[in-house]
Amino acid sequence: MSAVAPVLDRLDKNLDQSLERLFELLRLKSISTDPAFAGDCRKAAEWLVADLKTIGFDASVRDTPGHPMVVAHHDGPEGSPHVLFYGHYDVQPVDPLNLWEDDPFDPKIKEIAGGIKVITGRGSSDDKGQLMLFVEACRAWKDVHGGLPCRITLLFEGEEESGSPSLKPFLEANAEELKADFAMVCDTGMWDRETPAICVGLRGLVGEEVIVKAADRDLHSGEYGGAAANPVRILAKILAAIHDDDGSVTIPGFYDGVEETPSQVLKSWETLGETAENFLGEIGLSIPSGEKGRSVLELVWARPTAEFNGISGGYTGKGFKTVIAAEASAKVSFRLVHKQDPEKIRAAFRAFVRARIPADCSVEFHEHGAGPAIQLSYDSPFLAKAKDALSDEWPKPAVMLAMGGSIPIVGDFQTLLGMESLLVGFALPDDRIHSPNEKYDLASFHKGQRSWARILDALTKRS
Amino acid sequence: MSAVAPVLDRLDKNLDQSLERLFELLRLKSISTDPAFAGDCRKAAEWLVADLKTIGFDASVRDTPGHPMVVAHHDGPEGSPHVLFYGHYDVQPVDPLNLWEDDPFDPKIKEIAGGIKVITGRGSSDDKGQLMLFVEACRAWKDVHGGLPCRITLLFEGEEESGSPSLKPFLEANAEELKADFAMVCDTGMWDRETPAICVGLRGLVGEEVIVKAADRDLHSGEYGGAAANPVRILAKILAAIHDDDGSVTIPGFYDGVEETPSQVLKSWETLGETAENFLGEIGLSIPSGEKGRSVLELVWARPTAEFNGISGGYTGKGFKTVIAAEASAKVSFRLVHKQDPEKIRAAFRAFVRARIPADCSVEFHEHGAGPAIQLSYDSPFLAKAKDALSDEWPKPAVMLAMGGSIPIVGDFQTLLGMESLLVGFALPDDRIHSPNEKYDLASFHKGQRSWARILDALTKRS
Repeated sequence: MSAVAPVLDRLDKNLDQSLERLFELLRLKSISTDPAFAGDCRKAAEWLVADLKTIGFDASVRDTPGHPMVVAHHDGPEGSPHVLFYGHYDVQPVDPLNLWEDDPFDPKIKEIAGGIKVITGRGSSDDKGQLMLFVEACRAWKDVHGGLPCRITLLFEGEEESGSPSLKPFLEANAEELKADFAMVCDTGMWDRETPAICVGLRGLVGEEVIVKAADRDLHSGEYGGAAANPVRILAKILAAIHDDDGSVTIPGFYDGVEETPSQVLKSWETLGETAENFLGEIGLSIPSGEKGRSVLELVWARPTAEFNGISGGYTGKGFKTVIAAEASAKVSFRLVHKQDPEKIRAAFRAFVRARIPADCSVEFHEHGAGPAIQLSYDSPFLAKAKDALSDEWPKPAVMLAMGGSIPIVGDFQTLLGMESLLVGFALPDDRIHSPNEKYDLASFHKGQRSWARILDALTKRS
Repeated sequence: MSAVAPVLDRLDKNLDQSLERLFELLRLKSISTDPAFAGDCRKAAEWLVADLKTIGFDASVRDTPGHPMVVAHHDGPEGSPHVLFYGHYDVQPVDPLNLWEDDPFDPKIKEIAGGIKVITGRGSSDDKGQLMLFVEACRAWKDVHGGLPCRITLLFEGEEESGSPSLKPFLEANAEELKADFAMVCDTGMWDRETPAICVGLRGLVGEEVIVKAADRDLHSGEYGGAAANPVRILAKILAAIHDDDGSVTIPGFYDGVEETPSQVLKSWETLGETAENFLGEIGLSIPSGEKGRSVLELVWARPTAEFNGISGGYTGKGFKTVIAAEASAKVSFRLVHKQDPEKIRAAFRAFVRARIPADCSVEFHEHGAGPAIQLSYDSPFLAKAKDALSDEWPKPAVMLAMGGSIPIVGDFQTLLGMESLLVGFALPDDRIHSPNEKYDLASFHKGQRSWARILDALTKRS
C-alpha cells in the first residue's frame, strides 16, 4: 500500500473537523488594508500558530512593521527535500456589505444551484480555505505516519491583499531560515470543476494612487465654475488618455519587455474552448475591453493592463452639491507580463500624469506595491510529477495555464531566495473572490486537501 | 424726518438682539440634500414661523413632498405695492468637517485678519444671514411705525441647496396667493466690502447624476483586467470628452441660445479691475480653466459651463483594492446663460453619454434640478431707485453685475408668476459659501438690514 492511501482515508474521515477549524479562521476579520482590523489580523496569525503547534510544527507569530507573519517548521526524513509552503491569512474588505447574502464573517455550508455545496464567507476561497488545505494534508500525514514526508516550512502572510509591504524585508532578513528546495503556493484556481490546473505564468502588478489638487478649498461651482480648475475634470482627462481607442495603453515605454506569447501556447489555450461570450457572460458582459484582436485568455493571462480600481472626488453622497472639489484621486494598477519592469512602469505613469497637470495645480502619488510578472518554465522537474498527482485526484487531467492575477511572492521567492514555485490552487471562476458573496466549493476544500497529500507524496517519493 | 430714519436707528440699537435671533436659526442643521436632516429642516421652518408671528405676520409652515415652505403675509397701506421677498433656510452639507475651524452649527462672532468682525457657521452667508436681514428690517419698521410700508409676502424655501424639487409645484398651486407686483431676492453678493451690487444676470443650472454599469458584480482586476469593461474607465473617457482642449463644451447643441455679451457690458466689467490673478489667486489658482480668450468675469458671469461636482467608483478607502467596480457614477452640472434650454441641454448630455456606453454596459441617469438663466433688463423701473437706496448706505455707489450662481426661483417667478425680481445681497467673495468655514461679515448683517429698510422706503414712497 502506498504511503498516501491511508492519508487520503484520514482526510475523508476528518472532513467535518477540518471544516470546523476553517470556520474558526474565517470568523476572524483579518482585513489587511484597513488599519481598523489590525487586531483581527494578529488574532488570525495567533490562531494559525496555535493550530500548527497541535500538529507538531515549531510555529511562531513573527512581528513586522505591518501585520505579522506566521512561520512554522517541521523536520522530515533524512535526505528528503525541504519545501516551503506559502499562503496568506489576510482578506479583502467586504464593502459593499449590503450585497452579501450571508454574513461575510459567519461562514456556513450552503447548497447553490446544481446541488453544489459551498463554504460561504470572505476568505473562504482567497486564501484561508486554500492555505488550510495544506495544513490539513500535513495534519493527516502526521496522524497516520507519525511524521511528514519531507522537511516543511510554512509561511503565512498577513498583507497579501494590501501590497505586501513587509514581505521583501522579511524574506531578506530571514533568507537562511526560509530558503528551501522549492516553494509551493496555494493561491490560484482550477480550470473548471473537473480540471485541476498548474499555473506557469502570473501577471505582475504596480499599484499607484494619484491625487490631483487644484484650489485650496472646495468651491461653489456657480461662483467659480468656468474659471477655476476642476480636479475631477483634470483627473478624468488623464485617465481617459491612458488607453487608446483600441484598448492599448498609451504610456510611453509601457510595452517595453512585453513578449508575444509563443504560438504553440496560444494554440493549447485555444483547445480549452474558452470564448469571450463564455468568459464575460458569467459576469454579465460580452465584449472584451482590452487590446483588439486577442482572445480573452490571452488578454487576462499574457497581456499587460492599466486598470482604474477606484476614483473619488467632490460630493458623492445622496442628492447634489454644486461644488468644485479641491482635489480628486484615483487608485490605478498595472498588470505586468514577461519582463516589464515595475519601477520603470511606475516612473513612466507618474511622468505621464505630471505632464498633464496644469501649471497652477499639483499632484501627489502614493505607492501601493509592485511585483514583476512570473513566467515558469514548462519543463521544471517537479511539474510533471505534480501534474500526474493532480490528474490522479480529479476527473480530468491537469492543465498548465497562466493567470491574470499577481502573486508577488512568487517573484520574490525567485529573486530573493532562488526558489521556483509550484502554483496549484482549487479556486473556481465563480468563487467571487474580492467581491460580495465569496465562496469556496466544499469539493475544492475536500479534494484540495487530498490533492496536496498526493503532491507531497509524488514529490518526496524516492523511486 | 423721513420714514426710514427712525427705522435705521432702531436697527442700530437692536443689532445684538437680531444677532441672537440669527444664531438660533444658524444652530438648526437644516441640510436639505441629506434625508438624515429632514427633521432639522422642519425645525428651521417652524422657528421662522414663530419668529414672524412675533412681528405680526400671518405665517405658516406649508408642507410639500420634500422640506416645507414658510409663507407669511402682512398687509400694507391702501394702494401700496405688494412685494414678495424670497430666501432659503436650508444649507449645504458641511463635509469635510475636519477642515472647519469652528463648529459649523455653533455660530459665533470672530475677528479675522484686518480687524473684520464676522459671523461664523454654515448658512451664515448662504442664506440664513441674508434672509434675516429683511425680517429684521420689517421688524424694525413695524416697531417704529406700527405697520409696514407696503403689503409684504415672505416665501422661505427649504430645498434651494438640493435642486428645489417642490418649488415649481408649490408656486403653481399657490400662484394667486404668492403673485405680487415684484419680487425681492436676497441670495447674492456685493462687489467688494465697500460696493453694493444689484444682480441683473444669473446663470441657470442643470444637475445630472450619471451611473455607468458594467459587470454584474465587482471583479478581481487580475482575473478580469484587460477583458472586462471597467466603468471608471468608461466614465473617465466620457467626462474627458465633454471639454475640448480650449475649454469649450463639445456636447452637440450645447451653445444653442448662448449670446455674446454686449461690448458695453464687457467694458463696464473691465472697469471693475478684476484679473485672473486676483480672482483665482484668492483660492490658490492662477490660470482660467474655461474657454480661452475671455476674462474671468465673463467666464463666470456670462458663459455656460460643464462641471463635474462629484465622482465615485471602485475602492476609495484607505490602502488599495485590486477591484474592477461594477459601476461608477458622477454628478455633473451645467451652468447656463441667456436662452439655453435646460431640458434640451439635459437631453443632449444624455445622448452624448449614451453614444459612448459600450454595447454590453448600461447607463442610468438621475435628475437633480434645472433652471434657465435669468437676464434682467438694465432699465427696470425699480432698479434705479434700489441703486440709489444702496448707494446711500454704502461708501461706494452700487454697481450692476451678473453672477455665476443659479437662483432658479428668479426664473420661476418670471415664468410662473409674471414677476420681475430685484436681486440684492450682501455676501462677500471670501464668505466661503458651500465650503468649510463659511462666514458672514458683521457689517453685511448690520448694513444689510439698513439697506433693505432703505430699499423698502425707496420703492414704496409716493412721490
